[in-house]
Amino acid sequence: MHRLWTLKEFPFHPEKLLHHETIFCVGNGYLSTRASFEEGYPKQVPATLVHGIYNHAPGALVPELVNAPNWLPINIRIDGTLFQLITEAIDFLHPAKGALLGYQRTLDMESGVLRREVLFRAKTGSIVRLVFERFASLHDQHVLAQRVQIFVIDGNPEIIVESSIDGDVDNNGYKHWGDFNVEAADNMISIGAKTQQSGYRIGMASKVKASGKLRAKAHGLQPTISTKFTLQPQETATIDKITTIYTSRDTEEPLADAKQKVSEAAKKGYDTLLVKHRAEWRKYWDSSDIQVDGDEEAQIALRFVMYHILIAAPRNDDRVSIGAKTLSGFGYKGHVFWDTELFILPTLTLTQPTIARNLLMYRYHNLSGARNKARANGYEGALFPWESADTGEETTPQWSDPQPDGTRIRIWTGDSEQHIATDIAYAVLQYWHWTGDDEFLRKNGAEIFLDTAVFWGSRAEAKNGRYEISQQIGPDEYHENIDNSVFVNRMVVWHLQSAFNLLNWLKNNAASDCERLVQQLNLTPQRLDHWRDIIAKMYIPFDEQKQIHVQFPGFFDLEYIPVPLYEPRTMSVQAILGHHRTIKTQVIKQADVVALMALLWDELGVSHQVKLNNWNTYYPRTDHGSSLSPAMHTWVASKLGLDETAYEMFQHAAEIDLKDNKGNVRDGIHGAACGGLIQAVLFGFCGLYINAQGKLETEPRLPAHWKQVSFKVYYRGKRRSFTIKNPVAVPPSE
Amino acid sequence: MHRLWTLKEFPFHPEKLLHHETIFCVGNGYLSTRASFEEGYPKQVPATLVHGIYNHAPGALVPELVNAPNWLPINIRIDGTLFQLITEAIDFLHPAKGALLGYQRTLDMESGVLRREVLFRAKTGSIVRLVFERFASLHDQHVLAQRVQIFVIDGNPEIIVESSIDGDVDNNGYKHWGDFNVEAADNMISIGAKTQQSGYRIGMASKVKASGKLRAKAHGLQPTISTKFTLQPQETATIDKITTIYTSRDTEEPLADAKQKVSEAAKKGYDTLLVKHRAEWRKYWDSSDIQVDGDEEAQIALRFVMYHILIAAPRNDDRVSIGAKTLSGFGYKGHVFWDTELFILPTLTLTQPTIARNLLMYRYHNLSGARNKARANGYEGALFPWESADTGEETTPQWSDPQPDGTRIRIWTGDSEQHIATDIAYAVLQYWHWTGDDEFLRKNGAEIFLDTAVFWGSRAEAKNGRYEISQQIGPDEYHENIDNSVFVNRMVVWHLQSAFNLLNWLKNNAASDCERLVQQLNLTPQRLDHWRDIIAKMYIPFDEQKQIHVQFPGFFDLEYIPVPLYEPRTMSVQAILGHHRTIKTQVIKQADVVALMALLWDELGVSHQVKLNNWNTYYPRTDHGSSLSPAMHTWVASKLGLDETAYEMFQHAAEIDLKDNKGNVRDGIHGAACGGLIQAVLFGFCGLYINAQGKLETEPRLPAHWKQVSFKVYYRGKRRSFTIKNPVAVPPSE
Repeated sequence: MHRLWTLKEFPFHPEKLLHHETIFCVGNGYLSTRASFEEGYPKQVPATLVHGIYNHAPGALVPELVNAPNWLPINIRIDGTLFQLITEAIDFLHPAKGALLGYQRTLDMESGVLRREVLFRAKTGSIVRLVFERFASLHDQHVLAQRVQIFVIDGNPEIIVESSIDGDVDNNGYKHWGDFNVEAADNMISIGAKTQQSGYRIGMASKVKASGKLRAKAHGLQPTISTKFTLQPQETATIDKITTIYTSRDTEEPLADAKQKVSEAAKKGYDTLLVKHRAEWRKYWDSSDIQVDGDEEAQIALRFVMYHILIAAPRNDDRVSIGAKTLSGFGYKGHVFWDTELFILPTLTLTQPTIARNLLMYRYHNLSGARNKARANGYEGALFPWESADTGEETTPQWSDPQPDGTRIRIWTGDSEQHIATDIAYAVLQYWHWTGDDEFLRKNGAEIFLDTAVFWGSRAEAKNGRYEISQQIGPDEYHENIDNSVFVNRMVVWHLQSAFNLLNWLKNNAASDCERLVQQLNLTPQRLDHWRDIIAKMYIPFDEQKQIHVQFPGFFDLEYIPVPLYEPRTMSVQAILGHHRTIKTQVIKQADVVALMALLWDELGVSHQVKLNNWNTYYPRTDHGSSLSPAMHTWVASKLGLDETAYEMFQHAAEIDLKDNKGNVRDGIHGAACGGLIQAVLFGFCGLYINAQGKLETEPRLPAHWKQVSFKVYYRGKRRSFTIKNPVAVPPSE
Repeated sequence: MHRLWTLKEFPFHPEKLLHHETIFCVGNGYLSTRASFEEGYPKQVPATLVHGIYNHAPGALVPELVNAPNWLPINIRIDGTLFQLITEAIDFLHPAKGALLGYQRTLDMESGVLRREVLFRAKTGSIVRLVFERFASLHDQHVLAQRVQIFVIDGNPEIIVESSIDGDVDNNGYKHWGDFNVEAADNMISIGAKTQQSGYRIGMASKVKASGKLRAKAHGLQPTISTKFTLQPQETATIDKITTIYTSRDTEEPLADAKQKVSEAAKKGYDTLLVKHRAEWRKYWDSSDIQVDGDEEAQIALRFVMYHILIAAPRNDDRVSIGAKTLSGFGYKGHVFWDTELFILPTLTLTQPTIARNLLMYRYHNLSGARNKARANGYEGALFPWESADTGEETTPQWSDPQPDGTRIRIWTGDSEQHIATDIAYAVLQYWHWTGDDEFLRKNGAEIFLDTAVFWGSRAEAKNGRYEISQQIGPDEYHENIDNSVFVNRMVVWHLQSAFNLLNWLKNNAASDCERLVQQLNLTPQRLDHWRDIIAKMYIPFDEQKQIHVQFPGFFDLEYIPVPLYEPRTMSVQAILGHHRTIKTQVIKQADVVALMALLWDELGVSHQVKLNNWNTYYPRTDHGSSLSPAMHTWVASKLGLDETAYEMFQHAAEIDLKDNKGNVRDGIHGAACGGLIQAVLFGFCGLYINAQGKLETEPRLPAHWKQVSFKVYYRGKRRSFTIKNPVAVPPSE
């Protein structure tokens, strides 16, 4: 059923330009490139974002992921008419500037190839069909390939093709690159450049294969290879453009390496590169595809989210991670949040564990930033930054962009959203439980886990005969600098308890690593006693009468806003009520107590009734102002047996990027929503879990109309295939 | 799976305003009403079209179906702010003209109810949720019902509701109504009016049930009932508006009857009316729903096309028929074409035979127009008009609207597209074969069938030792006034042959009717001998060497245009090449020889190889410039075993109205494409047919991914249920 593997745009939808630019991205885990047009289009936002290349612009609050030179430009003249997507109402028989007669664009998610076919009439009346293809090689991450086929339907046109690399690029207006080195020689163009503050060097080179005499010219920041030829009716011309890219994160000589690589790649040729690219994607999907029978929209949505996780996931680099908007747009400046560990990473842990390890190693390598942050705040151990870039230091801006009334709003997440320390620790343990990767745990994971525990040991405040944690932001970011977030406090207890288990395991299984860590992190008996005390006496806000967890003390004194009444909203309740009022209400941005239940379903140690009470309390107060929320709610609703609500939330989550109902997909894919959707299916609908005996089990509650779900996951080095039929689950086969 | 019964718009898509206005229509077979908004919207095209109410405006080339007074208007003021769909970018917290905060619209095709929920903030800050519902009662076709619920989320607003009937309506600017009689008394408003040329009278009346003191006022052509009240937070107000409609086609006193009926209906109340409406829809779907397992898009598409056929199909009137654009837009002015008999009618013949009979009776009652047309052209018998309205006379305009260059193009279809005579005869016989309705055949059908045969007997030209038919337009309307269309000539042979079979049956089964018709239509032995001679000597263009039917002699001398090269077109090849050039090419507008194969699959008496040759010849020359084409191609491709092409064409057909890829759905639903899609499934994929022994059989070739198709059809008075599994068909159960 090929049709469930393809995104399609037919005809051209200029009103969805930037939405489509995001969702039709191609990428290979090293970089991603937005689906901008080769010939350009008014107000398009072309961007190629390469993992790890950040720059801090003068006057900017924080560094951002830098838009690399644009490898896409191919301009085509047909009988002198510049090919463009001309959509104004015109006389199609006698177009003044040419006319677009046909258009179809498809993203084949199965093979990561973007293809566009257009039919175009030149001023002279000649009609050509142009077929554009592109991919970012999954087989060789430094290779980018384009093919244009020009087929003459009517006329005898003279064709001029100009292929460039465009160094004159920016991030929303700011130009990060300098020290340009633009060259053109024989049939090769290249650009070298350096980010102005951070000093990352980039090298890109292109070669073209086409009819006619190829001329390379280095004018300005757009070195160009051009050619000219004439075509007969029903003749086809093929133009292949191969581009390569290296940065100083890969090699000492990115420009030289790009030039050498482009010669090798061009020699292999487009077809060979494509064959290898496809073969690599086949392998990728073989271990990642989730198949749903009985719900085509869900099937497409699951492939879509998996595709976007896969193209953003660093396969060969353990010093970068996936930003909140993947590599598909400028939103959140390429920064890495808890979105990665709690939403995106589980998908990779289960289906691509070596990549999951890379993402966790990014945190390991950046422990120094986390330690700096803890120290700067007067604490011990490691407190990971709420927003993280290449240096591992905190990069959360302190102020928002100006609001409609001109004022800026103070952003407190970098100060107070400290639960990220535990989120990362949680991901470390989850990775270890699933993979059994003891080496990672011994050498890297345990240090992350224990040093973040050290942070919490120093962070918890002995007060009122118990321990409290003040000035926090939980997942519900509408309530800032609150005391005793139940999510935070309870997760910290879990964190410290698990630290003891971990230490125990290390003592029995890796004594020297244990010894080393005890020394290095100063895990004295006194410290451990203190942790035990915190575990015993941590304040967990709970209403005994209502039998619910209390999101934080005082929450129920805030104004009650019945969120369901605000349907069918097209915006958050926060946007409807305004920032200043929302803070004073019980409106919740996203799963908070519900997230606590998802993460500690069994460990929470409360009855099913309490969980249901929590749901009934917090679900109607949640406006899902964050794209992270619906998938987490799907998961928990499914576990609670609230099947209809679970499916409603699933649909909500599935539509976030595909339908762009909030109108912000232009800024990039919602990476956490992607990962969240897969968690919702695996952990929610399929009820996949590791039982007390360390065996994989499922407790499925599939949506009523789903007939079957099939997937494969790695568990402790072995791949297991599951086929879960509705309503009866089939036991896993090896 | 309720979700496969619903069309949904979320959020508001102003760029699809007129597309949605068409596809979200409600109707009941008496009238349909476009999905315009109660409060209005810039450039919306509200229309209520009532079967049979035509008027010929001064200066217009032809009469058109008249837009009835608009029963929708309900204006609501919240704290003085007029509710409107304000979508401009504004400060949502302090909107100058109010702000749209949320929007969702659903058409429940299962029950024919259109529902819209909106969230709106008034200037004062009050927030209300408005829920609009409407339906055109299927239980009582003269009753139209609306409900508005106003729910206060925030604030304490004063509400003013003004409900009107709007007599100031037009068809694309022309106002057909005059002699207005506008009244308002107590809680009732009404409008009487008369079409200016044709003299049809209409009467409409509304009553409102709501809080506050209701005041009726007759100002201008918009009599209005208004009320004012104040709501508390979380209070709901319900406004029910019931409207009735009669015309002088129904009664001598349409206005008086509308007033009487509205009092009765208002007394029953909205809820009771809705219950009865739903019950009637349940019955309707029970005999019409086609269920597809394994293809959700197909499932929705099939329900969508069936819905639009059902709301346009006259249940209680045998003097009207379904126009090419149903009752959903002004396109083709409400005229009736062959679309009805060859595309829409088979669906009704199989699932709603009493309605199919109504449609055929429309032709019977209009035989005089067909006889006039034959006589005016110098022929005998009956030649049905290419376009037909209320009088049954020819209403095809002779000239097109002005082209971009200002010129008009001569339209020849009214002169030369004479195959409609046989299309209607074909539908008569098909209806009889399926229903076994001998009474209809004896009293009405035979007369249509035989008098159109009389026409062809007088039309065929003895020439060159054979019979020829000159100056025709076949289904392929790109080629005008051609001689010896193989479609026409071969269908005429079938027509005359079938006339003998019919006469034979009449002689044996209805001797007196036979006698009467022989007398009345002057079916002398000489005439019958002449028919036999035509059957024997009709020229059927056939290329013996290529073993193909020739669309018409000379066709292959025209310029060859390889149509598949023009993909991915967003317009017809005719639009790309222009009218004047297309005529001189082999580009075919729609199934022509392919249509001949569909209609006479067995009777054609040629080998499978010839059929395949025909397909291979004509399919690549067809640009599907008509929406009738893809479904007919699906049917034939499926019979030929070309499964992939069949499914591709099916998708093409299914998208015509749902996706509006051609941008003309604003003018109305493509009725023939709707019916064609169902034929494609029943006759194509399912291969449903009556075998030589008069038994129902299937020869299924379901698309590879379809698991099962279920449907019910009437056959000779009995309902048969089919469940066709892929690949094996289950025999029908009673």
